[in-house]
Amino acid sequence: MIYVRNAWYVAAWTQDLEVEKPLAIDLLGEPVVIWRSQRGDIAALENRCVHRLAPLSLGRCEGDKLRCMYHGFLYSRDGHVSEIPGQDVIPASAKVKSYPVTEKHSWIWVWMGDPDKADEALIPPAVGFDDPNYILGRGHFDYAAEARLISDNLCDFSHLTYVHANSFGAGDDFAKTAPNIAALDRGVRFSRWITGTAGPAARSNDELIDAWSSYDYLIPGVLLMWSGSFKRGYAEECKYGPPQDLDDAIRGVTFTSQAVTPMTEKTSRYFFSWGPHVKHGDEALRDILMGVAGQAFAEDKTMIEAQQAILDKTETPRVLPSAHDRGVVMFNKLVERLAKEERSVDASAA
Amino acid sequence: MIYVRNAWYVAAWTQDLEVEKPLAIDLLGEPVVIWRSQRGDIAALENRCVHRLAPLSLGRCEGDKLRCMYHGFLYSRDGHVSEIPGQDVIPASAKVKSYPVTEKHSWIWVWMGDPDKADEALIPPAVGFDDPNYILGRGHFDYAAEARLISDNLCDFSHLTYVHANSFGAGDDFAKTAPNIAALDRGVRFSRWITGTAGPAARSNDELIDAWSSYDYLIPGVLLMWSGSFKRGYAEECKYGPPQDLDDAIRGVTFTSQAVTPMTEKTSRYFFSWGPHVKHGDEALRDILMGVAGQAFAEDKTMIEAQQAILDKTETPRVLPSAHDRGVVMFNKLVERLAKEERSVDASAA
Amino acid sequence: MIYVRNAWYVAAWTQDLEVEKPLAIDLLGEPVVIWRSQRGDIAALENRCVHRLAPLSLGRCEGDKLRCMYHGFLYSRDGHVSEIPGQDVIPASAKVKSYPVTEKHSWIWVWMGDPDKADEALIPPAVGFDDPNYILGRGHFDYAAEARLISDNLCDFSHLTYVHANSFGAGDDFAKTAPNIAALDRGVRFSRWITGTAGPAARSNDELIDAWSSYDYLIPGVLLMWSGSFKRGYAEECKYGPPQDLDDAIRGVTFTSQAVTPMTEKTSRYFFSWGPHVKHGDEALRDILMGVAGQAFAEDKTMIEAQQAILDKTETPRVLPSAHDRGVVMFNKLVERLAKEERSVDASAA
Repeated sequence: MIYVRNAWYVAAWTQDLEVEKPLAIDLLGEPVVIWRSQRGDIAALENRCVHRLAPLSLGRCEGDKLRCMYHGFLYSRDGHVSEIPGQDVIPASAKVKSYPVTEKHSWIWVWMGDPDKADEALIPPAVGFDDPNYILGRGHFDYAAEARLISDNLCDFSHLTYVHANSFGAGDDFAKTAPNIAALDRGVRFSRWITGTAGPAARSNDELIDAWSSYDYLIPGVLLMWSGSFKRGYAEECKYGPPQDLDDAIRGVTFTSQAVTPMTEKTSRYFFSWGPHVKHGDEALRDILMGVAGQAFAEDKTMIEAQQAILDKTETPRVLPSAHDRGVVMFNKLVERLAKEERSVDASAA
Repeated sequence: MIYVRNAWYVAAWTQDLEVEKPLAIDLLGEPVVIWRSQRGDIAALENRCVHRLAPLSLGRCEGDKLRCMYHGFLYSRDGHVSEIPGQDVIPASAKVKSYPVTEKHSWIWVWMGDPDKADEALIPPAVGFDDPNYILGRGHFDYAAEARLISDNLCDFSHLTYVHANSFGAGDDFAKTAPNIAALDRGVRFSRWITGTAGPAARSNDELIDAWSSYDYLIPGVLLMWSGSFKRGYAEECKYGPPQDLDDAIRGVTFTSQAVTPMTEKTSRYFFSWGPHVKHGDEALRDILMGVAGQAFAEDKTMIEAQQAILDKTETPRVLPSAHDRGVVMFNKLVERLAKEERSVDASAA
Repeated sequence: MIYVRNAWYVAAWTQDLEVEKPLAIDLLGEPVVIWRSQRGDIAALENRCVHRLAPLSLGRCEGDKLRCMYHGFLYSRDGHVSEIPGQDVIPASAKVKSYPVTEKHSWIWVWMGDPDKADEALIPPAVGFDDPNYILGRGHFDYAAEARLISDNLCDFSHLTYVHANSFGAGDDFAKTAPNIAALDRGVRFSRWITGTAGPAARSNDELIDAWSSYDYLIPGVLLMWSGSFKRGYAEECKYGPPQDLDDAIRGVTFTSQAVTPMTEKTSRYFFSWGPHVKHGDEALRDILMGVAGQAFAEDKTMIEAQQAILDKTETPRVLPSAHDRGVVMFNKLVERLAKEERSVDASAA
């Protein structure tokens, strides 16, 4: 698997990292333990005791430290062993890898690359539960599939017409037209107007509107999308560019943040939130949206895990990209370029 | 695994291939999708979309075509893509493998070899539900074992005495004597008289009879057997050859069709039907026979999957054939010879 | 995996080997079948029929023989085939490996090495249900982990403080001090006094005592431990050496026998018994002890299987031994030395 390492990966929902309950997750194939101290600090270490490789995630929090509960090695937040029961001297080699970790927009982010380059400005601007403008629900699914397959899926929404025929309910026309696609520094932007429509199936309306949606798919695999309904003709007013003002939306403004995290070569965790703008909905609408999302994301999972199973049976897999793969190809090339740059920096540093 | 490719493999019971419900099965390690259109035509394709390798078996039937429900590629029965949503030109390479497929004797048969050689005359003459002479029941079992092990089992009925001590109930003598074994063009014929017997355990009778049974085991792995009870002395009248006339049977005429289909290297599907001749039984007897068969075939499965598990633990497996393996060896040599011939034809064609 | 072959491995509890019910177990990766005849004799053979590799453990006992229930090959206790149904001549090669096997201290022991060296004097002196001095309970756990990891665990009791914080309840001090460790011919002896203590958590007492415990960890992986409470000051009387007389114990004398058996490279079976001396307890105390042991051994299993899972994710696992690993290292070096000696004997014999 080729992944960018100098990036922030979503490891958990903030809400799921409880105080003094260490959480284990594999990230890019590396076992990681994350914990939150009583004081509220979080830390992320290699989840593998230097002593005999027991997982520290079965450990006990003591102050801001974490004790391996096999034979009691005590770890500082920086990965150094600070106590070995029954032994006075602690060898310098008694340390595990420590990962930059931070909490933002309701997600726990772990930096998997060079710690010196861990820059919080690179955290994608997701919308978290701390944003007063949105009423969100959240969830996550574990995939028995490579993360790249999920990213591919998210960079080509023409699948909405087929995979989600029974949930999101995009019509045939949706798959026949392409969104606007634009390169970003660390991602790809997809946007489109659908003019004179009744709106999304689950929230359609007699009054025809111009529907806008736009999402950025960002390194390492974060989707941030907002959608809204505008009065008929508004798209033309904007010359089919982005809405001049979100406040012009007459209804249906929602935001969804999604993150695809590669755990191992063929397992991934997919995090998602969705909900209406406070001016355009309430908890009840949020619950309806989450119901639709739950069904739709289960449809994706069924398809992508089946795709992975076929891949596993295929000696030399080849794909035949279609016109809709433009965004997929752009994002994958970006990943490859950034990964390659990282490797050449590593090589020249060595 | 060595298998003959120029052969018809049973992929399903006719009854299990419902209209517009695509069915996925691996055949000789290749993922295959089979579907029946509203009009009733069946088709079999490689179960792997050219686009991104999603399984077409999750697709939607549209007329006599099949649409991949990931991004909407539409497939004709011959494997060509006839529509790519959002794209005008369809590349010539946009096609998947198409398999000759036909329906006969209540089975769906797929030809795994050179399509030009697909000759329906090579379909083994099984007895299907369309045959008015027999009252049949049917079933199938999935094995976690290589198909060859099931074929080996079916070519040596001495296992009836041991594996099926509690079901078919053949006695010790059965395993001490050998059937007549004869080579066929594409199989092996096993037949035997048991004279002066009370008949099979489940259907024994006070009146002693001469019991005849004969089965062909045919490429690629199809067993067709008929049995019947004749009056005491009849075997001698026939000079211990085949009965002169099936109508001479005084009771107990039954027919069973069985097929062993290699799915992957170590998984197989085993299809079977059994039932009495209309003159010798009714639905009630059919149900009794299916009850016995269900128990017996579960006994086979237990033994053969256990054998496979031991094989998997054995670095260099060696067998020690016994006298009863004559039929096993004949059939396996036939498979090897035919497979070798195919390969040499392929090589000279190349 | 490096294991000593010239050793007796525990394959089952005596009570679990029922008359004429063959028992299958993998030992050091070899499939073994053990059975007890109606007369009471036990035998152990390679669990793999010479004919087509079916497991003999699915077979039928006939007198002191075992019949493969696939095609009826009959095996003598020494592994020779004595009957092949339908065949008069039995080839000399028709035999499977036979293992020295014996029953002692309520365990079935199988010798995995050179049969000529199978010496019952090498059976560790476990305490079985035939010992009138102890009231025992027993059990076994299957591990998805290499046996060596369980042995490592048993050779370093400092884990009691951490893994068993909620069951055995050894305090922090326990992990800060080391037991006396002494080499034995075929094992390592661990012993310690804890003076002026209230005794083990589950059986603590107002009256402070001197607590003694001592265990031998013996090739191939057998732990034999006795513990007892002595009057305050007794340890000093003994100059902190072993108690002069077990009868001096004032309460709490118990004995536990434990055995770790490698099944395959990454699966193991762990057998254990525990109970009070008849002078120091009854069935009720035995049941309390077994309740504690059940919880504690499940704690070990959770930790060790998690450790194995981390090991499996680690490309080049390295350990960092601590002061408490002295016993672990001694035992592993003993295993390596004995295994090496065996190999050099084998090599010079070849």
